[in-house]
Amino acid sequence: MSYKSDIEIARGASKALIQDIGAKIGIESKDLLPYGHDKAKVSQSFINSVQDRKNGKLILVTAINPTPAGEGKTTTTVGLGDGLNRIGKKAMVCIREASLGPNFGMKGGAAGGGYAQIVPMEDMNLHFTGDFHAITSAHSLLSAMIDNHIYWGNELDIDTRRVVWRRVVDMNDRALRQITTSLGGVSNGFPREAGFDITVASEVMAILCLAKDLTDLQKRLGDMIVAYRRDRSPVFARDIKADGAMTVLLKDAMQPNLVQTLENNPAFVHGGPFANIAHGCNSVIATTTALKLCDYVVTEAGFGADLGAEKFLNIKCRKAGLAPSAVVLVATVRAMKMNGGVAKADLGAENVDAVKAGCPNLGRHIENLKSFGVPVVVAINHFVTDTEAEVQAVKDFVAGQGSEAIVSQHWEFGGKGAEALATRVAEIADADMANFAPIYADEMPLAEKIQTICKRIYRADQALMDQKIRNQLKDWEAQGYGHLPVCMAKTQYSFSTDPNLRGAPVGHSVPVREVRLSAGAGFVVAVCGEIMTMPGLPRKPAAETIMLNDAGEIEGLF
Amino acid sequence: MSYKSDIEIARGASKALIQDIGAKIGIESKDLLPYGHDKAKVSQSFINSVQDRKNGKLILVTAINPTPAGEGKTTTTVGLGDGLNRIGKKAMVCIREASLGPNFGMKGGAAGGGYAQIVPMEDMNLHFTGDFHAITSAHSLLSAMIDNHIYWGNELDIDTRRVVWRRVVDMNDRALRQITTSLGGVSNGFPREAGFDITVASEVMAILCLAKDLTDLQKRLGDMIVAYRRDRSPVFARDIKADGAMTVLLKDAMQPNLVQTLENNPAFVHGGPFANIAHGCNSVIATTTALKLCDYVVTEAGFGADLGAEKFLNIKCRKAGLAPSAVVLVATVRAMKMNGGVAKADLGAENVDAVKAGCPNLGRHIENLKSFGVPVVVAINHFVTDTEAEVQAVKDFVAGQGSEAIVSQHWEFGGKGAEALATRVAEIADADMANFAPIYADEMPLAEKIQTICKRIYRADQALMDQKIRNQLKDWEAQGYGHLPVCMAKTQYSFSTDPNLRGAPVGHSVPVREVRLSAGAGFVVAVCGEIMTMPGLPRKPAAETIMLNDAGEIEGLF
Repeated sequence: MSYKSDIEIARGASKALIQDIGAKIGIESKDLLPYGHDKAKVSQSFINSVQDRKNGKLILVTAINPTPAGEGKTTTTVGLGDGLNRIGKKAMVCIREASLGPNFGMKGGAAGGGYAQIVPMEDMNLHFTGDFHAITSAHSLLSAMIDNHIYWGNELDIDTRRVVWRRVVDMNDRALRQITTSLGGVSNGFPREAGFDITVASEVMAILCLAKDLTDLQKRLGDMIVAYRRDRSPVFARDIKADGAMTVLLKDAMQPNLVQTLENNPAFVHGGPFANIAHGCNSVIATTTALKLCDYVVTEAGFGADLGAEKFLNIKCRKAGLAPSAVVLVATVRAMKMNGGVAKADLGAENVDAVKAGCPNLGRHIENLKSFGVPVVVAINHFVTDTEAEVQAVKDFVAGQGSEAIVSQHWEFGGKGAEALATRVAEIADADMANFAPIYADEMPLAEKIQTICKRIYRADQALMDQKIRNQLKDWEAQGYGHLPVCMAKTQYSFSTDPNLRGAPVGHSVPVREVRLSAGAGFVVAVCGEIMTMPGLPRKPAAETIMLNDAGEIEGLF
Repeated sequence: MSYKSDIEIARGASKALIQDIGAKIGIESKDLLPYGHDKAKVSQSFINSVQDRKNGKLILVTAINPTPAGEGKTTTTVGLGDGLNRIGKKAMVCIREASLGPNFGMKGGAAGGGYAQIVPMEDMNLHFTGDFHAITSAHSLLSAMIDNHIYWGNELDIDTRRVVWRRVVDMNDRALRQITTSLGGVSNGFPREAGFDITVASEVMAILCLAKDLTDLQKRLGDMIVAYRRDRSPVFARDIKADGAMTVLLKDAMQPNLVQTLENNPAFVHGGPFANIAHGCNSVIATTTALKLCDYVVTEAGFGADLGAEKFLNIKCRKAGLAPSAVVLVATVRAMKMNGGVAKADLGAENVDAVKAGCPNLGRHIENLKSFGVPVVVAINHFVTDTEAEVQAVKDFVAGQGSEAIVSQHWEFGGKGAEALATRVAEIADADMANFAPIYADEMPLAEKIQTICKRIYRADQALMDQKIRNQLKDWEAQGYGHLPVCMAKTQYSFSTDPNLRGAPVGHSVPVREVRLSAGAGFVVAVCGEIMTMPGLPRKPAAETIMLNDAGEIEGLF
């Protein structure tokens, strides 16, 4: 039996006009700002008009620690959305936008896969509605204004060695990681060390995804720390007077993007912060708006549940006042086998013992999620090679944890394949079983917040922080930043900081190498490993074979 | 009497849905890719479908050398378009897009002014339809791929001292003019000197504006020279294998943007190359498409006629096979007075002698334009302070040159104010009086082309080129580039290279400081003065006061 590729399926999609998709969730044509015939932004006046409505149920899709076998978190998110619609529920999906630059290194990807995808796939891998370009522009304006301020006399007394605001570009360009700027004489300014990150790593991106509205956006932009003086006092973006113009540049980017699934169900695809130095979720405004329009909103968080769901729950939900009614934890038989020690090449053969041996990774995520007070359903994202015995082994394990696992075949059959999962998730959400609370309080000291996550989620013996880091955290507390949540930047492949340590390790420690303050986004980043904020291109970049064919179709991008 | 500001007028515009504007020129809704309700791109399939139609008449609007008094070239272009529609002609306007970055330095501008404007003004000064972002992305991809090629072994043997492809950003950021990249060790590549220009200076922009279609675009992108080897042989973008992916990034940007005038007449606003190191006209694809849709197409060229019209006629028309039926030369009584020696502060007082003294600048432009075989009409862009006697002095002077001058009051009255101008221009265009030819042949050697422009247009005694420049031009001829036209980069304020020398100077020489080859765009640039390809921000950038007000309107941008 042969299967169509994601791109073949996406190109074969029978897309509805975006106005018809909008109509399904009560958005009139005048409130949609179309971008072509299959994408639209939702107007702010419409969003304002629905604020008094009751919220729908929020469902988070997360996953076990990712393995090379693939888990299909987005695929499950989309499939569950379609499944809910198929069983007669009014539901929509909220996911992140893709970054442009990386697509020219490795091939770009679908939003979802198989028959559970969001379209238009090509646009979503290219410029889409221009949000990331707007973020790059806003970020670049602030960069230019900082050096311009220094050039014209540096009234704010910025220490040019301590400009912490880097530049960004939405391209994988390692040559820009570390540069010297303002060379060439008097008219070009004061030379200093600088560098570029990729746009998704910009604090502007994190802010856009956490801001409630444009007023909140501007306030947060103004709160960003861009440099320090010799006395170590911070200089804010507000001091540079960049916050107003940045907000103007971002005013359209703030509006959620409406697109559709292959089954013509609505989806918001909006925002895309890094999941390591930021919180890795789609925008708050998309999620909160969707909750006003539908009875069920299915969303996802980056990486595995130890990072993605933890940040979704401790950062996004805390800040936006959201509370999920259910969490769907995606696992696959293949990933269980890899956690059980099977090599990728051997995944084709049935191996029930390996599945059983890998299940503790899943079990720990279930426990962790329950500790937030949310009911957990495991979705076994079905692969056609999975055997009955393997699937049953996962189901039995999950039952032993006091949860249930449901096989979902959305990849192969779309929403129809996710009906069982959708039915059960809707039941759980409707039962209002959740009693959600973040696992630490705002008032807890920053170092203790880090310890709490490391111990309760990673099950480490401790977080290791040297005196310099502890002092830095105390300084921030003294400056009024102690109430912020913590954003962990750690490998997604393990509960530990060793990416090769699969399963459910214990006895490890988590060394915190560095802490950073994202004062505008509103979190303290604890860096626990190598974090790359400007990727490079590979030896043979995908770009070399990307082109338009004679039919005007894009080749090589997928 | 008090007048509304451009932004007040623009905000008061009664805009038609862009689909209704499209319908006026026979474009169905399905062939428009909307960006909001007031902007749309025209599909390539529609453009292909009209290729067999007869062309309308092309009318170029150009101006005398600009003075601080302001000439109103775009205003006249828009007013003439509206005037033609008012007298029952099917006409549209084609102009350039504005660059984002400079709006954060000095205040952004209207497209036109008074009651002769194109809207939506705010969008056109911000992200518009994302064309410039796409150009920045395509340019940045090539930049990243060049350094990536060097990083992975430099198979093409690029001399890293001779990478001529700079980076771009659409922001005024002087700190990026000259930088050192790839610092920080092995994983970041081989350190080298580099720098950023502003996006409009990218050769990609010039190419987008000269390409006939996407196939031509990709060929030209591949033809760009990005670096040289130690043996001085060129390395092309095609060698880096970037041309296909760049074309994919530019596929939507290639489509003309449809917007409207205040009087709901159609306008294409598309492309915006620098008018110094590039040719300064809107895209060929917009102009050639407009000619298939309307009986009259009014377009403009950057700077004064000595630079803008010369390039429009010698570069754009030559390459695109276009021939204007009439040229409108815009002058103002105020500018004549400044050319006649009056200071800006004294322009309010009637001064007929000064007007007469300034007219030779106008006279020389008339002569020059006629030498291309095109009929010339002078449009006196009326200011409310102009006196009858001053206006008459200009009319008399122009009559003495064998042309005619017509007062146009579009700024105050919109299309109604331009009826007289429109009527006469249509008569001239319909009379098929033009016998257009560029003033030099393709076969002329490059140095001689430069001499021809300097002598025949600038009326200089000679162009001064040292041996190094002469040898460079000969080398390019030997490499097969001798057939290219020449693109002059010179001050726009004077026929000479001295910006303070108004009027119609003689006896001067034009020193050529440098020559550059834009092998993809297809011209040789002769740099005759300081050319700034990356502007800086002023001491008090406009950005500091740009913000959204409580009504959600943008303040400070205009």
